[in-house]
Amino acid sequence: MNRQVVLAARPAGVAQAEHFAIRDAPMPEPADGELLIRNLFLSVEPAMRGWIADAGNYAAPVAIGSVMRALAVGEVVESRHSAFTPGEIVTGWFGWQLHAAVGAEAVLRRVTETDLPLSLALGVLGINGVTAHLALTTIGQPQPGETVVVSTAAGAVGSAVGQIAGILGCRAVGIAGGSEKVAQCLDLFGYDAAIDYKEGALHEALASACPDGVHVYFDNTAGAISDAVYPQLAVGARVVVCGTASIAAWSPWPTGPRVERHLLVKRARAQGFVIFDHVERWDASVAQLAAWVREGRLRYAEDVLEGIESCPDAVAGLYRGENRGKRVVRL
Amino acid sequence: MNRQVVLAARPAGVAQAEHFAIRDAPMPEPADGELLIRNLFLSVEPAMRGWIADAGNYAAPVAIGSVMRALAVGEVVESRHSAFTPGEIVTGWFGWQLHAAVGAEAVLRRVTETDLPLSLALGVLGINGVTAHLALTTIGQPQPGETVVVSTAAGAVGSAVGQIAGILGCRAVGIAGGSEKVAQCLDLFGYDAAIDYKEGALHEALASACPDGVHVYFDNTAGAISDAVYPQLAVGARVVVCGTASIAAWSPWPTGPRVERHLLVKRARAQGFVIFDHVERWDASVAQLAAWVREGRLRYAEDVLEGIESCPDAVAGLYRGENRGKRVVRL
Repeated sequence: MNRQVVLAARPAGVAQAEHFAIRDAPMPEPADGELLIRNLFLSVEPAMRGWIADAGNYAAPVAIGSVMRALAVGEVVESRHSAFTPGEIVTGWFGWQLHAAVGAEAVLRRVTETDLPLSLALGVLGINGVTAHLALTTIGQPQPGETVVVSTAAGAVGSAVGQIAGILGCRAVGIAGGSEKVAQCLDLFGYDAAIDYKEGALHEALASACPDGVHVYFDNTAGAISDAVYPQLAVGARVVVCGTASIAAWSPWPTGPRVERHLLVKRARAQGFVIFDHVERWDASVAQLAAWVREGRLRYAEDVLEGIESCPDAVAGLYRGENRGKRVVRL
Repeated sequence: MNRQVVLAARPAGVAQAEHFAIRDAPMPEPADGELLIRNLFLSVEPAMRGWIADAGNYAAPVAIGSVMRALAVGEVVESRHSAFTPGEIVTGWFGWQLHAAVGAEAVLRRVTETDLPLSLALGVLGINGVTAHLALTTIGQPQPGETVVVSTAAGAVGSAVGQIAGILGCRAVGIAGGSEKVAQCLDLFGYDAAIDYKEGALHEALASACPDGVHVYFDNTAGAISDAVYPQLAVGARVVVCGTASIAAWSPWPTGPRVERHLLVKRARAQGFVIFDHVERWDASVAQLAAWVREGRLRYAEDVLEGIESCPDAVAGLYRGENRGKRVVRL
């Protein structure tokens, strides 16, 4: 038997446990050209909120009654595709389930860095690390000596951004919620400075940490944190719009201080980044990230939940801020 | 005697006539290395609001009691600089006054296109046309067949943007206030479609005029017009943040619908443009614009006020929407 987590109801904001259901299903049979995959790790992403939401997004929303869309790492247990062999480890769109029968287009890549934990293919060597690396370099374009500010600085994307900024010779300033995450930013992820936004006085703390202004703002949150950063952008600054974690819902559409004057006066640029536009650069990025991990220059934290029964509440938990690293579910 | 318009008081919003004073002053004497210029035309810009404002801007604010900062076209009547000869026509930072003694650094360029009206050096062949040309091409990067939406579409910058977009093979859609300006967009400036934002239903009108979405938004207004455009950005859209004409004051800072989600989902880019960063490209841009004017492909409208006494109320009049083209003052 297979076991699956399906979307049971469409939430207005962040999906809670009750918006999902767990069901048993027959073991899938791969058709000609397909693979049967046994999942080893399932990914939990803040972006899942958007994948579920009814509003316009970069992909069609997950249908009610469907297996929840998710990246996973798994082993090929049966192959009816000439390019794959049983025993290979792959990562891709296999969904929140124990087994998946999928076509080759669902496979993002083979996991070849088997000297490192396989779960990293979902985090620092997966969507999070590759997003951090490509969004920072292609949109942020950080130059040595510049100041890079990162929101959700201890998160799966943010922690990689801060460290890559440091590798590229920048001063990295992290913004995170709570003293525990701030300590993680400083002690584990090597930020030059870290700010606890829950302490208030964010504007003053930023001004103190960024005396030359903010050259690159890697924005994972939008909301009040961004509202404090925009007035401190340096001339020619770049804002990487990567996530909107602090916005609980886009209906009704939230308002905030207008950004046009900041962009104009600072000749600054704000640009959205969606990793799925950059699939052709994925392999090269993973190779670079894996090299940095092996050299000890790129650290990571994982928050490992056990068993598929952990899935339904896992996204809501991210928005409650309870994870201390990339959240994955071990099967 | 000289005659000057000085800033008498700093306005909270748009400068009104009472924020200026007219005074007589001795005829200026050019020092060694300077020129004495007799102004022929003075420029009136929406951006003057920002040059006067106390808030952060791209240049220091005009000091109380100083001659109002302004571009002008004038004739060199006396030269104590080896590179200039009496009788030459020049444009530059000569201020709202009849005569100016200035150093060579105040001269933007010699006006060599003397087959065309000299006042054009302040409009379609000046800051407005060059801004339109360089901001559209460097930030907007319009591709043939794309849709370019322009706010203040009949204005000095906007009218050039719409026509250059057409020259570059784009579909140009203008947004302007009132039926007279809309007619000017369609009849004089050759927009493919024009929308009167004062009629309401801007969202529906835009959707109808831009069935493929908005690839380039040339934003001269911010405010409610931008709020209607952002949701209709196409994937990969570029927003040229060039002006904020619809925002009467930035204190208290105005709010509006958040743009992050649009930028993210559409992988769009918003970037500020200030012409003074691009001085090295000014001459080449003017040469291109002048060629288009001579070929009849780039039309312009002028709103000519008479005499220096027209200056104090001239900026306020722009914000009242009373001009029908580039506003200049003929001396």
